[in-house]
Amino acid sequence: MNSEPNQAKDELGQRILKIKKAKGWKWNDIAAKLGHSPVWVCAACLGQMSMTPETAAKAVTLFGLDDADADTLEQAPYRGSLPTQVPTDPLIYRFYELVSVYGTTWKEMIHEEFGDGIMSAIDFDMTMERQPDQKGDRVKLGLSGKFLPYKRY
Amino acid sequence: MNSEPNQAKDELGQRILKIKKAKGWKWNDIAAKLGHSPVWVCAACLGQMSMTPETAAKAVTLFGLDDADADTLEQAPYRGSLPTQVPTDPLIYRFYELVSVYGTTWKEMIHEEFGDGIMSAIDFDMTMERQPDQKGDRVKLGLSGKFLPYKRY
Amino acid sequence: MNSEPNQAKDELGQRILKIKKAKGWKWNDIAAKLGHSPVWVCAACLGQMSMTPETAAKAVTLFGLDDADADTLEQAPYRGSLPTQVPTDPLIYRFYELVSVYGTTWKEMIHEEFGDGIMSAIDFDMTMERQPDQKGDRVKLGLSGKFLPYKRY
Amino acid sequence: MNSEPNQAKDELGQRILKIKKAKGWKWNDIAAKLGHSPVWVCAACLGQMSMTPETAAKAVTLFGLDDADADTLEQAPYRGSLPTQVPTDPLIYRFYELVSVYGTTWKEMIHEEFGDGIMSAIDFDMTMERQPDQKGDRVKLGLSGKFLPYKRY
Amino acid sequence: MNSEPNQAKDELGQRILKIKKAKGWKWNDIAAKLGHSPVWVCAACLGQMSMTPETAAKAVTLFGLDDADADTLEQAPYRGSLPTQVPTDPLIYRFYELVSVYGTTWKEMIHEEFGDGIMSAIDFDMTMERQPDQKGDRVKLGLSGKFLPYKRY
Amino acid sequence: MNSEPNQAKDELGQRILKIKKAKGWKWNDIAAKLGHSPVWVCAACLGQMSMTPETAAKAVTLFGLDDADADTLEQAPYRGSLPTQVPTDPLIYRFYELVSVYGTTWKEMIHEEFGDGIMSAIDFDMTMERQPDQKGDRVKLGLSGKFLPYKRY
Amino acid sequence: MNSEPNQAKDELGQRILKIKKAKGWKWNDIAAKLGHSPVWVCAACLGQMSMTPETAAKAVTLFGLDDADADTLEQAPYRGSLPTQVPTDPLIYRFYELVSVYGTTWKEMIHEEFGDGIMSAIDFDMTMERQPDQKGDRVKLGLSGKFLPYKRY
Amino acid sequence: MNSEPNQAKDELGQRILKIKKAKGWKWNDIAAKLGHSPVWVCAACLGQMSMTPETAAKAVTLFGLDDADADTLEQAPYRGSLPTQVPTDPLIYRFYELVSVYGTTWKEMIHEEFGDGIMSAIDFDMTMERQPDQKGDRVKLGLSGKFLPYKRY
Amino acid sequence: MNSEPNQAKDELGQRILKIKKAKGWKWNDIAAKLGHSPVWVCAACLGQMSMTPETAAKAVTLFGLDDADADTLEQAPYRGSLPTQVPTDPLIYRFYELVSVYGTTWKEMIHEEFGDGIMSAIDFDMTMERQPDQKGDRVKLGLSGKFLPYKRY
Amino acid sequence: MNSEPNQAKDELGQRILKIKKAKGWKWNDIAAKLGHSPVWVCAACLGQMSMTPETAAKAVTLFGLDDADADTLEQAPYRGSLPTQVPTDPLIYRFYELVSVYGTTWKEMIHEEFGDGIMSAIDFDMTMERQPDQKGDRVKLGLSGKFLPYKRY
Repeated sequence: MNSEPNQAKDELGQRILKIKKAKGWKWNDIAAKLGHSPVWVCAACLGQMSMTPETAAKAVTLFGLDDADADTLEQAPYRGSLPTQVPTDPLIYRFYELVSVYGTTWKEMIHEEFGDGIMSAIDFDMTMERQPDQKGDRVKLGLSGKFLPYKRY
Repeated sequence: MNSEPNQAKDELGQRILKIKKAKGWKWNDIAAKLGHSPVWVCAACLGQMSMTPETAAKAVTLFGLDDADADTLEQAPYRGSLPTQVPTDPLIYRFYELVSVYGTTWKEMIHEEFGDGIMSAIDFDMTMERQPDQKGDRVKLGLSGKFLPYKRY
Repeated sequence: MNSEPNQAKDELGQRILKIKKAKGWKWNDIAAKLGHSPVWVCAACLGQMSMTPETAAKAVTLFGLDDADADTLEQAPYRGSLPTQVPTDPLIYRFYELVSVYGTTWKEMIHEEFGDGIMSAIDFDMTMERQPDQKGDRVKLGLSGKFLPYKRY
Repeated sequence: MNSEPNQAKDELGQRILKIKKAKGWKWNDIAAKLGHSPVWVCAACLGQMSMTPETAAKAVTLFGLDDADADTLEQAPYRGSLPTQVPTDPLIYRFYELVSVYGTTWKEMIHEEFGDGIMSAIDFDMTMERQPDQKGDRVKLGLSGKFLPYKRY
Repeated sequence: MNSEPNQAKDELGQRILKIKKAKGWKWNDIAAKLGHSPVWVCAACLGQMSMTPETAAKAVTLFGLDDADADTLEQAPYRGSLPTQVPTDPLIYRFYELVSVYGTTWKEMIHEEFGDGIMSAIDFDMTMERQPDQKGDRVKLGLSGKFLPYKRY
Repeated sequence: MNSEPNQAKDELGQRILKIKKAKGWKWNDIAAKLGHSPVWVCAACLGQMSMTPETAAKAVTLFGLDDADADTLEQAPYRGSLPTQVPTDPLIYRFYELVSVYGTTWKEMIHEEFGDGIMSAIDFDMTMERQPDQKGDRVKLGLSGKFLPYKRY
Repeated sequence: MNSEPNQAKDELGQRILKIKKAKGWKWNDIAAKLGHSPVWVCAACLGQMSMTPETAAKAVTLFGLDDADADTLEQAPYRGSLPTQVPTDPLIYRFYELVSVYGTTWKEMIHEEFGDGIMSAIDFDMTMERQPDQKGDRVKLGLSGKFLPYKRY
Repeated sequence: MNSEPNQAKDELGQRILKIKKAKGWKWNDIAAKLGHSPVWVCAACLGQMSMTPETAAKAVTLFGLDDADADTLEQAPYRGSLPTQVPTDPLIYRFYELVSVYGTTWKEMIHEEFGDGIMSAIDFDMTMERQPDQKGDRVKLGLSGKFLPYKRY
Repeated sequence: MNSEPNQAKDELGQRILKIKKAKGWKWNDIAAKLGHSPVWVCAACLGQMSMTPETAAKAVTLFGLDDADADTLEQAPYRGSLPTQVPTDPLIYRFYELVSVYGTTWKEMIHEEFGDGIMSAIDFDMTMERQPDQKGDRVKLGLSGKFLPYKRY
Repeated sequence: MNSEPNQAKDELGQRILKIKKAKGWKWNDIAAKLGHSPVWVCAACLGQMSMTPETAAKAVTLFGLDDADADTLEQAPYRGSLPTQVPTDPLIYRFYELVSVYGTTWKEMIHEEFGDGIMSAIDFDMTMERQPDQKGDRVKLGLSGKFLPYKRY
């Protein structure tokens, strides 16, 4: 396999970032125009989600793209956005650190509440917002994933 | 260094889990008695957070522990709760997958909103709750970390 | 964390294997008595699935175990049964090889048929049977996992 | 060695995917025309199987390829379709997870039924189909590999 | 899983090595008594092959072992005899080096002669002998594995 | 260092493979013309061995190459023909598996016969032939390496 | 993702190094003109820090760059300046070695003085100077990071 | 080699930490009594530095140890205090992050000032102090290593 | 295999180090008594070389060991003395660094002088001595390995 | 960072090798003209050492290079000449093997003679010569590095 299996989507993502910067748009603006939430729209533009033909058409119009780009936006990505197993970028690493520190806590608490199973990362959505705080504003993320019980067959 | 640098806290965590099970307590119950949130209390009992002497004293009383255990609870842990760099347990892996899929999205959106910096994983808190849903209840996590701007000196 | 986080279930699994051998039972026999399919029962006994209290009670009776063992059987495992990232045992390696060779094929064909999403490994079941064949009998596995579409939010 | 030893087959695979998309064909259609099963045909087009000259000739005609492409299709691939040892793409990862969770179960059950040996990944075939289900359709895979007993010499 | 899944067979192997040394036996002697070839017998005693009950019984008698040892000898091993992915021991490393240097040569020549497929490592046997040579005696290994053609289905 | 330190030899190897295919030659034919054994000739053409000026001159004539290619053929290679530490290609992996399964057996038997030392992978030669067999022809490899005793100084 | 996610900043960094060399400037000179400390300025020019528009404008003027370069300088980098997890360059490796040797000492002493928490690598600054010494001048680094206490919530 | 080659020093370090806690001493107190700086003393007690017989004798008296412990304190350690190549503990990870982010900056600036060479990690000393700050106190580290020019011979 | 395959020799090595320290012997003294060079004797005592029965007998007498220890000293070791692939101990790491920095230089110069082949690490000996120097004494190592030409067969 | 941070020096090294071959020079010849030892000169030409402006000027004249090449030769390299952590090339691997086998021996003997410290790999020089020997000529390396005692501060 190509060592960069998601290359077309990644390259389009870089182009969209430049267009976005040139236009002075925010992800909220783009999201409103595409009819989806900002987090999902950002992930889709960066090549980690696939758009429906309808959404892709809107994106093509919005960003001034072409048909090949529409195909690229609709394609299911080869997901995985990071060049290393342990991310080196500090912003992203902190999330890896949360997995490392809180992994067993999530396991313990989700099993207590729901039983043996997992939180889906597929039937999943997320929000991000600024949480004003006198001691310094905070990043607030809301994660919501369907609980999937392990099938006992 | 000992290849299991957090061994004392890990072993105490296993003992607390057994006591909790024998007592039939929930993390909510324990949290209420220790005066902290359930997620933090669970993480602290599993050995990934350190308690103040006051909280440790309450824990010792609650679980029927001894003075050496109090010391263990107060000690700053050698954090990192997972035996492998990429977690094998599916519940925990899904969070790793979120980092892999959404890493660049978080980076893009936090920088857009806050500028160059990170979401702290230290000045950080989290909630977990059941989100009822007709198509299957959902796990809902609320993450909140202080934004730390990169110092330009 | 303990570097062998699933130790209690693993050790019980080794004990059950010895009892099974001593009794001369087959997994089909055990499965019939526990009321589940042989593959799931084998996985649960080896410590990779968790039993309901009812099933655990049956297992305790069947194998002559005790209450602590029942707890162990009911506990959600820290899943991941292999000591290395790439399995060294040839029987297990061949399955890893199938993932390596057919990974992109599965991705292509599942996306063609179902769209962007995954085959669940949680809402999942499996069968194994001998497929008689003149040129040498074959191992036949039937895998069935619910398709989970990626949520577009 | 070239760090992408299967490059010619990989690149041809990308071209075939575009032709397939442009033509609006399904793998079932292509398979019927090439006289093989859909899974094998998809794997061969993606560069993980080699075609006989007869099949390659049919493929060249079907896709409008040239003689060099025929050579590429006939060549034995340097197999291994994934860019990382642990796949990052969630659809493919779930299969890796099955190996991790069920590896010891497969080993136990195949040895019980067949004795010491392995399921061949070479004398092997696979089917994939949609399994309608009220709670959500399922992906159904049928794997069949010849049992190969370890030679005792 | 136990991080040393082949422990029982490994430990028995160490015991057999001591008995062999105490008795002053050669692998040829042991092989003759067990009715198999020396290479296979050595591999089986070191825990990498499984014996039939008949052979295990002979081994128990020969080495003065007990019934539990017979079980251990009959058990299918969790194969893989080396503590690291790249072996550090120079004698064993040289074989790894041969794979690294000659890997593409074997691939090229076996495909030329037999077509797309592999040399089986399961339906496989090996001999080892001293090859006298004036410039220094040589180790001579004869490897023979059934060719398995890739199934085109 | 260049991350592909053997690039010139690798590229020439790919060119030779194409010429060989176009000419319809076998490695036996080429070997006869170059005056060496087929295995060594194949390895040298694939860039893992270096030719003497005499042999390189013959190769240049035979394949229709130029002076720069002669230099490339004569150069000592940066050996190591595989893109990953554990080979993913099944044909090559089986040899890695033999090292993993038989590594300790080779060590035990060579030390028994020759004492402490190794089989040279440098003063080494190899043959490959088809071994006809009613149950399916076999690949037969003959490896011969000088025993090198560890110097005690 | 692009396997070199910080490529634009890295390439600009190489260009700036050449301009700096051609001009005969020192980092102290550049720092004075950009109004920041030499260490930060060097890190920013090498692509590991982001400039404010004001500083970027000064840099563009100073180095004779263009508007696209200004954008590049302002962009938050995908941090991580090293091509391998363990650095091979001896100058950089020595710092990795300090982490390896002094890691537990820093942990012990910072916890003693400040309690459970960390030294921020974000609200962080550094100085570097020559420390004259008769036995050979020394490199003197001053690191200063805000202590961040672990939040107990 | 023992997989924990520094075990004796590590275990003694754990014992000293308990004695220190029981006595209520600070590293400053211990350092004053042993006649060395606090950072070095802490590193030596944790097993990463070796003491002279004189210092070891003082330590034995201070902590109430025995002769075997004196030997252990005097022994040159097998240095490396961390259980993983990339540290998981956040306090220690931040230093690894500094190497990753500032590695190329250190290289650039040290070469500018001193020429080709390194900062010694052997002829090296370090200080740690609390730096009061209205916005939150800071950890201040002073590193000083002799510059070693690469020998041109 | 045992994850510490050289355990018996490693443990005996630790015992010998204690005896040596108690006796106040130097490696030169021990070497003289065993009739070999100091480097080889040290390596053999640490478990990385095997002794002849005659030398082992002398060592048993010298150190006051028993017959089982003699067997251990005579056994061919599972070589490889380091717990990690990249050594963490600075003294040993510097040698790894020399391989990293000078690897291509050795290759270039040995090939120039001797042609395609290697320096044997088996038919190999080494000396170590103190080289007095006004600017600080130096460690002087003399390595001598037989050149082994690659066989062209 | 560029994933090949030493690219300019590596490429120049390849060019110099071609010029050297065309001229029929030996490293001894080149070394004599540049006024340094052959090993250092070879390492510098291959991009692992930096030249003074004077030496670079001589090299430019000798090899017929240009001013940009002089800059490249003077630049401090990003050292590390090997594409993998464990070298695959047998000539270079044997040196890695020496580190693995003799690592603990060097540590033991250098500490015995010099105390706690290391042999410098910076204040270091090396010679290489042919050692005639009736049983086959030998490669003789002389390594000399300044002993650096660990500072106790």
